[in-house]
Amino acid sequence: MQGREISQAVIQRLPRYYRYLGELLEDGVERISSNDLSKRMKVTASQIRQDLNNFGGFGQQGYGYNVKYLYTEIGKILGLEENHNMIIIGAGNLGQALANYAAFEKRGFVLRGLFDINPALTNTEIRGVKIRMMEELKEFVRNNDVEIAALTIPKDTAVEVANMLVDNGVRAIWNFAHTDLNLPENIIVENVHLSESLMKLSYNICRYNEKHKE
Amino acid sequence: MQGREISQAVIQRLPRYYRYLGELLEDGVERISSNDLSKRMKVTASQIRQDLNNFGGFGQQGYGYNVKYLYTEIGKILGLEENHNMIIIGAGNLGQALANYAAFEKRGFVLRGLFDINPALTNTEIRGVKIRMMEELKEFVRNNDVEIAALTIPKDTAVEVANMLVDNGVRAIWNFAHTDLNLPENIIVENVHLSESLMKLSYNICRYNEKHKE
Repeated sequence: MQGREISQAVIQRLPRYYRYLGELLEDGVERISSNDLSKRMKVTASQIRQDLNNFGGFGQQGYGYNVKYLYTEIGKILGLEENHNMIIIGAGNLGQALANYAAFEKRGFVLRGLFDINPALTNTEIRGVKIRMMEELKEFVRNNDVEIAALTIPKDTAVEVANMLVDNGVRAIWNFAHTDLNLPENIIVENVHLSESLMKLSYNICRYNEKHKE
Repeated sequence: MQGREISQAVIQRLPRYYRYLGELLEDGVERISSNDLSKRMKVTASQIRQDLNNFGGFGQQGYGYNVKYLYTEIGKILGLEENHNMIIIGAGNLGQALANYAAFEKRGFVLRGLFDINPALTNTEIRGVKIRMMEELKEFVRNNDVEIAALTIPKDTAVEVANMLVDNGVRAIWNFAHTDLNLPENIIVENVHLSESLMKLSYNICRYNEKHKE
Protein backbone atom coordinates (compact mmCIF):
# COMPACT_ATOMS: atom_id res chain seq x y z
CA MET A 1 0.00 0.00 0.00
CA GLN A 2 2.75 2.47 0.82
CA GLY A 3 4.77 4.35 -1.72
CA ARG A 4 3.20 2.97 -4.90
CA GLU A 5 1.58 5.23 -7.44
CA ILE A 6 -1.97 4.06 -8.11
CA SER A 7 -3.54 5.18 -11.37
CA GLN A 8 -6.37 7.71 -11.14
CA ALA A 9 -8.56 5.22 -13.00
CA VAL A 10 -8.28 2.75 -10.13
CA ILE A 11 -8.81 5.47 -7.55
CA GLN A 12 -11.92 6.55 -9.41
CA ARG A 13 -13.27 3.03 -8.98
CA LEU A 14 -12.40 2.57 -5.30
CA PRO A 15 -15.34 4.53 -3.85
CA ARG A 16 -17.66 2.31 -5.85
CA TYR A 17 -16.10 -0.81 -4.32
CA TYR A 18 -16.49 0.86 -0.96
CA ARG A 19 -20.17 1.52 -1.62
CA TYR A 20 -20.89 -2.05 -2.72
CA LEU A 21 -18.97 -3.56 0.19
CA GLY A 22 -20.85 -1.26 2.57
CA GLU A 23 -24.14 -2.56 1.19
CA LEU A 24 -23.00 -6.18 1.50
CA LEU A 25 -22.02 -5.47 5.08
CA GLU A 26 -25.45 -4.02 5.80
CA ASP A 27 -26.99 -7.14 4.29
CA GLY A 28 -24.92 -9.30 6.63
CA VAL A 29 -22.73 -10.84 3.92
CA GLU A 30 -19.39 -11.94 5.37
CA ARG A 31 -17.52 -13.28 2.34
CA ILE A 32 -17.80 -12.71 -1.37
CA SER A 33 -15.93 -14.17 -4.32
CA SER A 34 -14.62 -11.89 -7.04
CA ASN A 35 -17.09 -13.62 -9.37
CA ASP A 36 -20.10 -12.73 -7.25
CA LEU A 37 -18.85 -9.20 -6.70
CA SER A 38 -18.30 -9.00 -10.44
CA LYS A 39 -21.92 -9.92 -11.15
CA ARG A 40 -23.22 -7.35 -8.71
CA MET A 41 -20.97 -4.54 -9.87
CA LYS A 42 -21.12 -5.40 -13.57
CA VAL A 43 -17.38 -5.29 -14.01
CA THR A 44 -15.23 -8.30 -14.89
CA ALA A 45 -13.87 -10.47 -12.09
CA SER A 46 -10.41 -10.00 -13.52
CA GLN A 47 -10.72 -6.23 -13.24
CA ILE A 48 -11.75 -6.59 -9.62
CA ARG A 49 -8.77 -8.84 -8.87
CA GLN A 50 -6.45 -6.47 -10.70
CA ASP A 51 -7.78 -3.38 -8.95
CA LEU A 52 -7.58 -4.89 -5.50
CA ASN A 53 -4.11 -6.26 -6.22
CA ASN A 54 -2.92 -2.68 -6.30
CA PHE A 55 -3.33 -2.72 -2.58
CA GLY A 56 -1.85 -6.12 -1.95
CA GLY A 57 -4.91 -8.19 -2.77
CA PHE A 58 -6.96 -8.92 0.37
CA GLY A 59 -8.33 -12.06 -1.27
CA GLN A 60 -7.51 -15.65 -0.50
CA GLN A 61 -7.69 -18.01 -3.46
CA GLY A 62 -10.85 -20.06 -3.15
CA TYR A 63 -12.17 -18.27 -0.10
CA GLY A 64 -13.19 -14.99 -1.64
CA TYR A 65 -12.89 -11.68 0.09
CA ASN A 66 -13.66 -10.95 3.70
CA VAL A 67 -16.21 -8.17 3.26
CA LYS A 68 -15.67 -6.42 6.57
CA TYR A 69 -11.90 -6.48 6.25
CA LEU A 70 -11.93 -5.30 2.65
CA TYR A 71 -14.41 -2.54 3.48
CA THR A 72 -12.25 -1.31 6.33
CA GLU A 73 -9.03 -1.47 4.34
CA ILE A 74 -10.47 0.43 1.39
CA GLY A 75 -11.85 2.95 3.86
CA LYS A 76 -8.34 3.45 5.23
CA ILE A 77 -6.91 3.82 1.75
CA LEU A 78 -9.55 6.42 0.95
CA GLY A 79 -8.64 8.31 4.10
CA LEU A 80 -12.02 7.74 5.71
CA GLU A 81 -10.56 6.56 9.00
CA GLU A 82 -9.30 10.05 9.73
CA ASN A 83 -11.42 13.09 10.37
CA HIS A 84 -11.34 15.91 7.86
CA ASN A 85 -12.57 19.34 8.90
CA MET A 86 -14.75 20.76 6.16
CA ILE A 87 -16.51 24.03 5.52
CA ILE A 88 -19.05 24.96 2.87
CA ILE A 89 -18.90 28.33 1.14
CA GLY A 90 -22.33 29.24 -0.19
CA ALA A 91 -25.36 28.26 1.86
CA GLY A 92 -27.85 28.25 -1.01
CA ASN A 93 -29.76 25.12 -1.99
CA LEU A 94 -26.71 23.22 -3.09
CA GLY A 95 -24.65 24.19 -0.04
CA GLN A 96 -27.55 23.21 2.20
CA ALA A 97 -27.98 19.92 0.37
CA LEU A 98 -24.34 19.09 1.09
CA ALA A 99 -24.65 20.26 4.70
CA ASN A 100 -27.70 18.10 5.26
CA TYR A 101 -26.10 15.00 3.93
CA ALA A 102 -25.29 13.31 7.22
CA ALA A 103 -23.55 10.37 5.56
CA PHE A 104 -20.54 12.57 4.88
CA GLU A 105 -20.04 12.94 8.61
CA LYS A 106 -20.14 9.18 9.10
CA ARG A 107 -17.22 8.95 6.69
CA GLY A 108 -15.15 11.42 8.66
CA PHE A 109 -15.99 14.65 6.87
CA VAL A 110 -16.87 16.91 9.76
CA LEU A 111 -18.74 20.07 8.86
CA ARG A 112 -17.31 22.96 10.88
CA GLY A 113 -18.96 25.95 9.26
CA LEU A 114 -21.13 27.34 6.49
CA PHE A 115 -20.56 30.75 4.94
CA ASP A 116 -22.74 32.99 2.85
CA ILE A 117 -23.17 36.64 1.84
CA ASN A 118 -26.89 36.68 2.52
CA PRO A 119 -27.48 38.58 5.80
CA ALA A 120 -30.88 36.91 6.16
CA LEU A 121 -29.00 33.72 6.99
CA THR A 122 -27.07 35.22 9.92
CA ASN A 123 -27.65 33.23 13.10
CA THR A 124 -29.41 30.39 11.31
CA GLU A 125 -27.91 26.93 11.41
CA ILE A 126 -28.05 23.60 9.64
CA ARG A 127 -27.68 20.39 11.60
CA GLY A 128 -26.31 22.45 14.46
CA VAL A 129 -23.69 24.19 12.34
CA LYS A 130 -23.93 27.97 12.28
CA ILE A 131 -24.13 29.90 9.02
CA ARG A 132 -21.58 32.72 9.17
CA MET A 133 -21.04 35.74 6.99
CA MET A 134 -18.20 35.83 4.48
CA GLU A 135 -16.37 38.55 6.44
CA GLU A 136 -15.61 35.95 9.11
CA LEU A 137 -14.27 33.36 6.69
CA LYS A 138 -10.59 34.24 6.70
CA GLU A 139 -10.20 34.24 10.45
CA PHE A 140 -12.31 31.13 10.82
CA VAL A 141 -10.12 29.19 8.41
CA ARG A 142 -6.97 30.34 10.20
CA ASN A 143 -8.22 29.25 13.59
CA ASN A 144 -10.06 26.00 12.87
CA ASP A 145 -7.68 23.76 10.99
CA VAL A 146 -9.95 23.56 7.98
CA GLU A 147 -8.75 20.97 5.50
CA ILE A 148 -11.51 20.88 2.88
CA ALA A 149 -13.69 23.70 1.55
CA ALA A 150 -16.70 22.99 -0.65
CA LEU A 151 -17.38 25.90 -3.00
CA THR A 152 -20.99 26.33 -4.04
CA ILE A 153 -20.74 29.95 -5.10
CA PRO A 154 -21.02 31.68 -8.50
CA LYS A 155 -18.04 31.46 -10.80
CA ASP A 156 -17.25 35.20 -10.67
CA THR A 157 -16.16 35.00 -7.05
CA ALA A 158 -14.98 31.41 -6.86
CA VAL A 159 -11.39 31.95 -8.00
CA GLU A 160 -10.78 34.80 -5.58
CA VAL A 161 -12.33 32.97 -2.63
CA ALA A 162 -10.41 29.78 -3.45
CA ASN A 163 -7.10 31.66 -3.51
CA MET A 164 -7.84 33.29 -0.18
CA LEU A 165 -8.72 29.91 1.35
CA VAL A 166 -5.54 28.32 0.09
CA ASP A 167 -3.44 31.26 1.30
CA ASN A 168 -4.87 30.64 4.74
CA GLY A 169 -4.19 26.95 4.96
CA VAL A 170 -7.02 25.08 3.23
CA ARG A 171 -5.58 22.00 1.56
CA ALA A 172 -8.36 20.83 -0.71
CA ILE A 173 -11.25 22.35 -2.64
CA TRP A 174 -14.42 20.53 -3.59
CA ASN A 175 -15.41 22.82 -6.41
CA PHE A 176 -19.01 23.14 -7.61
CA ALA A 177 -18.49 26.56 -9.22
CA HIS A 178 -18.67 26.55 -13.02
CA THR A 179 -15.07 27.48 -13.52
CA ASP A 180 -11.59 26.04 -13.21
CA LEU A 181 -9.69 27.36 -10.22
CA ASN A 182 -6.06 27.09 -11.40
CA LEU A 183 -4.67 26.68 -7.90
CA PRO A 184 -1.07 25.73 -7.01
CA GLU A 185 -0.19 22.11 -7.75
CA ASN A 186 0.01 21.07 -4.11
CA ILE A 187 -3.68 21.88 -3.60
CA ILE A 188 -6.11 19.02 -4.19
CA VAL A 189 -9.09 20.01 -6.30
CA GLU A 190 -12.08 17.87 -7.10
CA ASN A 191 -14.47 19.45 -9.59
CA VAL A 192 -18.16 18.71 -9.82
CA HIS A 193 -19.32 20.54 -12.93
CA LEU A 194 -23.02 19.73 -13.02
CA SER A 195 -23.77 21.45 -16.30
CA GLU A 196 -21.01 19.47 -17.98
CA SER A 197 -22.46 16.26 -16.72
CA LEU A 198 -25.85 17.25 -18.13
CA MET A 199 -24.25 18.05 -21.49
CA LYS A 200 -22.67 14.62 -21.61
CA LEU A 201 -26.11 13.17 -21.03
CA SER A 202 -27.57 15.22 -23.84
CA TYR A 203 -24.70 14.27 -26.16
CA ASN A 204 -25.40 10.61 -25.51
CA ILE A 205 -29.12 11.03 -26.20
CA CYS A 206 -28.40 12.68 -29.56
CA ARG A 207 -25.84 10.09 -30.46
CA TYR A 208 -28.28 7.32 -29.69
CA ASN A 209 -31.03 8.98 -31.73
CA GLU A 210 -28.70 9.42 -34.70
CA LYS A 211 -27.60 5.81 -34.61
CA HIS A 212 -31.14 4.51 -34.54
CA LYS A 213 -32.24 6.76 -37.37
CA GLU A 214 -29.58 5.40 -39.71
CA MET B 1 -19.41 14.32 -37.69
CA GLN B 2 -22.00 11.68 -38.59
CA GLY B 3 -21.60 8.01 -38.03
CA ARG B 4 -18.20 8.08 -36.33
CA GLU B 5 -17.73 6.67 -32.88
CA ILE B 6 -16.13 9.31 -30.67
CA SER B 7 -14.38 8.04 -27.56
CA GLN B 8 -16.01 8.83 -24.20
CA ALA B 9 -12.76 10.53 -23.18
CA VAL B 10 -13.20 13.12 -25.91
CA ILE B 11 -16.88 13.55 -25.11
CA GLN B 12 -15.97 14.10 -21.50
CA ARG B 13 -13.77 16.99 -22.59
CA LEU B 14 -16.24 18.64 -25.00
CA PRO B 15 -18.36 20.44 -22.39
CA ARG B 16 -15.18 22.01 -21.08
CA TYR B 17 -14.32 23.35 -24.54
CA TYR B 18 -17.86 24.61 -24.75
CA ARG B 19 -17.50 26.42 -21.44
CA TYR B 20 -14.22 28.09 -22.37
CA LEU B 21 -15.49 29.11 -25.80
CA GLY B 22 -18.62 30.55 -24.18
CA GLU B 23 -16.43 32.66 -21.90
CA LEU B 24 -14.30 33.84 -24.82
CA LEU B 25 -17.47 34.77 -26.64
CA GLU B 26 -18.69 36.77 -23.65
CA ASP B 27 -15.34 38.54 -23.60
CA GLY B 28 -15.75 39.49 -27.26
CA VAL B 29 -12.92 37.28 -28.55
CA GLU B 30 -13.55 36.36 -32.20
CA ARG B 31 -10.60 34.11 -33.04
CA ILE B 32 -8.25 32.00 -30.99
CA SER B 33 -5.27 29.85 -31.92
CA SER B 34 -4.96 26.35 -30.52
CA ASN B 35 -1.86 27.62 -28.67
CA ASP B 36 -3.74 30.38 -26.87
CA LEU B 37 -6.65 28.08 -26.11
CA SER B 38 -4.10 25.57 -24.84
CA LYS B 39 -2.64 28.09 -22.39
CA ARG B 40 -6.05 29.03 -21.06
CA MET B 41 -7.31 25.49 -20.71
CA LYS B 42 -4.01 23.98 -19.54
CA VAL B 43 -4.10 21.14 -22.02
CA THR B 44 -1.62 20.72 -24.86
CA ALA B 45 -2.31 22.39 -28.20
CA SER B 46 -1.89 19.04 -29.87
CA GLN B 47 -4.63 17.53 -27.72
CA ILE B 48 -6.92 20.39 -28.67
CA ARG B 49 -6.22 19.88 -32.37
CA GLN B 50 -6.70 16.15 -32.01
CA ASP B 51 -9.95 16.46 -30.09
CA LEU B 52 -11.48 18.94 -32.49
CA ASN B 53 -10.32 16.92 -35.49
CA ASN B 54 -12.79 14.27 -34.39
CA PHE B 55 -15.47 16.58 -35.66
CA GLY B 56 -13.76 17.63 -38.85
CA GLY B 57 -11.49 20.28 -37.41
CA PHE B 58 -13.04 23.77 -37.60
CA GLY B 59 -9.58 25.34 -37.61
CA GLN B 60 -7.76 26.97 -40.46
CA GLN B 61 -3.99 26.63 -40.35
CA GLY B 62 -2.55 29.97 -39.29
CA TYR B 63 -5.88 31.64 -38.67
CA GLY B 64 -6.92 29.89 -35.50
CA TYR B 65 -10.45 28.95 -34.62
CA ASN B 66 -13.51 31.09 -35.16
CA VAL B 67 -14.84 31.19 -31.59
CA LYS B 68 -18.51 31.76 -32.39
CA TYR B 69 -18.55 29.07 -35.06
CA LEU B 70 -16.74 26.54 -32.91
CA TYR B 71 -18.99 27.29 -29.93
CA THR B 72 -22.09 26.78 -32.04
CA GLU B 73 -20.83 23.60 -33.64
CA ILE B 74 -19.83 22.02 -30.35
CA GLY B 75 -23.23 23.06 -28.98
CA LYS B 76 -24.87 21.18 -31.86
CA ILE B 77 -22.71 18.13 -31.25
CA LEU B 78 -23.67 18.20 -27.57
CA GLY B 79 -27.33 18.35 -28.52
CA LEU B 80 -27.82 21.81 -27.03
CA GLU B 81 -29.57 23.20 -30.10
CA GLU B 82 -32.56 21.01 -29.40
CA ASN B 83 -34.91 21.27 -26.47
CA HIS B 84 -35.00 18.46 -23.94
CA ASN B 85 -37.96 18.13 -21.61
CA MET B 86 -36.73 17.44 -18.13
CA ILE B 87 -38.31 16.66 -14.78
CA ILE B 88 -36.78 16.47 -11.33
CA ILE B 89 -37.81 13.77 -8.88
CA GLY B 90 -37.13 14.92 -5.34
CA ALA B 91 -37.70 18.58 -4.51
CA GLY B 92 -35.38 18.70 -1.52
CA ASN B 93 -32.37 21.00 -1.41
CA LEU B 94 -30.56 19.27 -4.21
CA GLY B 95 -33.63 19.07 -6.45
CA GLN B 96 -34.34 22.74 -5.79
CA ALA B 97 -30.73 23.66 -6.51
CA LEU B 98 -31.03 22.01 -9.92
CA ALA B 99 -34.42 23.59 -10.56
CA ASN B 100 -33.10 27.04 -9.74
CA TYR B 101 -30.16 26.78 -12.04
CA ALA B 102 -31.53 28.86 -14.92
CA ALA B 103 -28.48 28.24 -17.10
CA PHE B 104 -29.74 24.74 -17.83
CA GLU B 105 -32.77 26.24 -19.53
CA LYS B 106 -30.55 28.44 -21.72
CA ARG B 107 -28.90 25.27 -22.98
CA GLY B 108 -32.19 23.69 -23.96
CA PHE B 109 -32.99 21.69 -20.83
CA VAL B 110 -36.56 22.73 -20.16
CA LEU B 111 -37.88 21.95 -16.71
CA ARG B 112 -41.44 20.64 -17.02
CA GLY B 113 -42.11 19.40 -13.53
CA LEU B 114 -40.85 18.67 -10.03
CA PHE B 115 -42.07 15.76 -7.94
CA ASP B 116 -41.88 14.99 -4.27
CA ILE B 117 -43.57 12.92 -1.57
CA ASN B 118 -43.77 15.79 0.91
CA PRO B 119 -47.41 17.02 1.01
CA ALA B 120 -46.22 20.35 2.44
CA LEU B 121 -44.82 21.12 -1.01
CA THR B 122 -48.16 20.65 -2.83
CA ASN B 123 -49.08 23.76 -4.80
CA THR B 124 -45.70 25.39 -4.32
CA GLU B 125 -43.57 26.15 -7.34
CA ILE B 126 -39.99 26.92 -8.31
CA ARG B 127 -39.31 29.33 -11.15
CA GLY B 128 -42.92 28.92 -12.21
CA VAL B 129 -42.77 25.13 -12.28
CA LYS B 130 -45.25 23.39 -10.03
CA ILE B 131 -44.18 20.80 -7.49
CA ARG B 132 -46.41 17.77 -7.88
CA MET B 133 -46.91 14.70 -5.73
CA MET B 134 -45.38 11.37 -6.73
CA GLU B 135 -48.84 9.86 -7.39
CA GLU B 136 -49.10 12.09 -10.46
CA LEU B 137 -45.70 11.15 -11.84
CA LYS B 138 -46.63 8.23 -14.06
CA GLU B 139 -49.41 10.00 -15.89
CA PHE B 140 -47.38 13.17 -16.20
CA VAL B 141 -44.50 11.34 -17.85
CA ARG B 142 -46.86 9.62 -20.27
CA ASN B 143 -48.49 12.86 -21.37
CA ASN B 144 -45.60 15.30 -21.47
CA ASP B 145 -42.93 13.79 -23.65
CA VAL B 146 -40.38 13.78 -20.84
CA GLU B 147 -36.93 12.91 -22.12
CA ILE B 148 -34.71 13.39 -19.05
CA ALA B 149 -35.42 12.75 -15.38
CA ALA B 150 -33.08 13.94 -12.66
CA LEU B 151 -33.28 11.67 -9.61
CA THR B 152 -32.49 13.35 -6.31
CA ILE B 153 -34.19 10.81 -4.06
CA PRO B 154 -32.84 8.30 -1.53
CA LYS B 155 -31.30 5.14 -2.88
CA ASP B 156 -33.99 2.82 -1.47
CA THR B 157 -36.62 4.15 -3.88
CA ALA B 158 -34.40 5.24 -6.77
CA VAL B 159 -34.28 1.91 -8.62
CA GLU B 160 -38.03 1.39 -8.52
CA VAL B 161 -38.79 4.96 -9.62
CA ALA B 162 -36.20 4.79 -12.40
CA ASN B 163 -37.74 1.59 -13.77
CA MET B 164 -41.21 3.10 -13.72
CA LEU B 165 -39.96 6.20 -15.56
CA VAL B 166 -38.24 4.15 -18.21
CA ASP B 167 -41.30 1.93 -18.67
CA ASN B 168 -43.28 5.06 -19.38
CA GLY B 169 -40.99 6.57 -21.97
CA VAL B 170 -38.21 8.47 -20.20
CA ARG B 171 -35.04 8.10 -22.23
CA ALA B 172 -32.34 9.33 -19.90
CA ILE B 173 -31.68 9.48 -16.16
CA TRP B 174 -29.47 12.01 -14.45
CA ASN B 175 -28.88 10.02 -11.31
CA PHE B 176 -27.90 11.64 -8.00
CA ALA B 177 -29.07 8.73 -5.86
CA HIS B 178 -26.29 6.80 -4.16
CA THR B 179 -26.87 3.63 -6.07
CA ASP B 180 -26.45 2.15 -9.53
CA LEU B 181 -29.70 1.83 -11.44
CA ASN B 182 -28.99 -1.15 -13.73
CA LEU B 183 -31.37 0.02 -16.44
CA PRO B 184 -31.73 -1.46 -19.95
CA GLU B 185 -28.81 -0.67 -22.23
CA ASN B 186 -30.77 1.68 -24.47
CA ILE B 187 -31.34 4.06 -21.55
CA ILE B 188 -28.76 6.80 -21.09
CA VAL B 189 -27.63 7.19 -17.49
CA GLU B 190 -25.32 9.86 -16.15
CA ASN B 191 -24.37 9.32 -12.52
CA VAL B 192 -23.36 12.08 -10.12
CA HIS B 193 -22.23 10.26 -7.00
CA LEU B 194 -21.28 13.12 -4.70
CA SER B 195 -19.97 10.99 -1.86
CA GLU B 196 -17.66 9.17 -4.26
CA SER B 197 -16.27 12.45 -5.48
CA LEU B 198 -15.60 13.48 -1.88
CA MET B 199 -13.84 10.17 -1.23
CA LYS B 200 -11.58 10.74 -4.19
CA LEU B 201 -10.70 14.11 -2.71
CA SER B 202 -9.91 12.55 0.63
CA TYR B 203 -7.81 9.83 -1.01
CA ASN B 204 -5.76 12.46 -2.76
CA ILE B 205 -5.21 14.40 0.48
CA CYS B 206 -3.93 11.26 2.23
CA ARG B 207 -1.76 10.35 -0.70
CA TYR B 208 -0.22 13.78 -0.70
CA ASN B 209 0.38 13.70 3.04
CA GLU B 210 2.05 10.29 2.81
CA LYS B 211 4.32 11.40 0.01
CA HIS B 212 5.50 14.46 1.86
CA LYS B 213 6.11 12.57 5.05
CA GLU B 214 8.55 10.23 3.32
